[in-house]
Amino acid sequence: MTGFRSHMDAALAEARAAGARGEVPVGAVVVSPEGRVVAAAGNRTREMADPTAHAEILALRAACAALGSERLPGHDLYVTLEPCPMCAAAIGFARIARLYYGAADPKSGGVAQGARVFAHPQCHHAPEVYDGIGARESERLLREFFAGRRGGGAAPS
Amino acid sequence: MTGFRSHMDAALAEARAAGARGEVPVGAVVVSPEGRVVAAAGNRTREMADPTAHAEILALRAACAALGSERLPGHDLYVTLEPCPMCAAAIGFARIARLYYGAADPKSGGVAQGARVFAHPQCHHAPEVYDGIGARESERLLREFFAGRRGGGAAPS
Repeated sequence: MTGFRSHMDAALAEARAAGARGEVPVGAVVVSPEGRVVAAAGNRTREMADPTAHAEILALRAACAALGSERLPGHDLYVTLEPCPMCAAAIGFARIARLYYGAADPKSGGVAQGARVFAHPQCHHAPEVYDGIGARESERLLREFFAGRRGGGAAPS
Repeated sequence: MTGFRSHMDAALAEARAAGARGEVPVGAVVVSPEGRVVAAAGNRTREMADPTAHAEILALRAACAALGSERLPGHDLYVTLEPCPMCAAAIGFARIARLYYGAADPKSGGVAQGARVFAHPQCHHAPEVYDGIGARESERLLREFFAGRRGGGAAPS
């Protein structure tokens, strides 16, 4: 299986693993121009005590470290949830070519709502954006995670 | 010398050091509720090949690591340049109480222009914002740095 569905499946697997660690279940992968996954990460803000350790930031940093470059031209980023303004701006700085995301995030998103980071002249590179891919599974993971939290139950595994 | 001028002076020293390393000269410090500098950093995007290695992000991550917490309530952040949307959102996630910044950044800023990250309901914590502190020296450092680049000269030291 190749193409954008399998890359989003890889991001969803990272989201599930994050949820199993007690983190908000969001996952991301960076894919090279040749279609190879060069970095994959899930949210680790709690474990790392780092408010910047969102899945997208960790995946971008890992991809840049692997390539020895602060820019990733021609690379795509897949993430299970609409990026927040922090991650959207980082995606622009990294010169990501295409952003594929799953669920919309009316509460904290910064791409299609709120700050709309890519919509201002202060943003010097905007990726092509494709939303809604794998959204149902992403929303299910998030819903179960927060329901488990509210109920005081264990984090979903 | 105490208070916000000395903290901005510390941030300006970080900016100068960044410029001497060939990085865009921006510096930041995080100050505890007791007025102690708990982290200081300059921009290192080039050296670290990391598009997220802005001064603010590095200072926030270092402060969070020192405190073992992803939130820094009651802490202030001083930065020599208006934060971009990435850094502004990270400042919100870290629950910074007061943001003091120097020069405005019409080209890439995300606080007073463009994305205006703190102005949307998707931002769950906005610091008090004080701008223009040490702006003249910050602008001078940036102007000299970019003039040196255009002229092909050495980075300002």
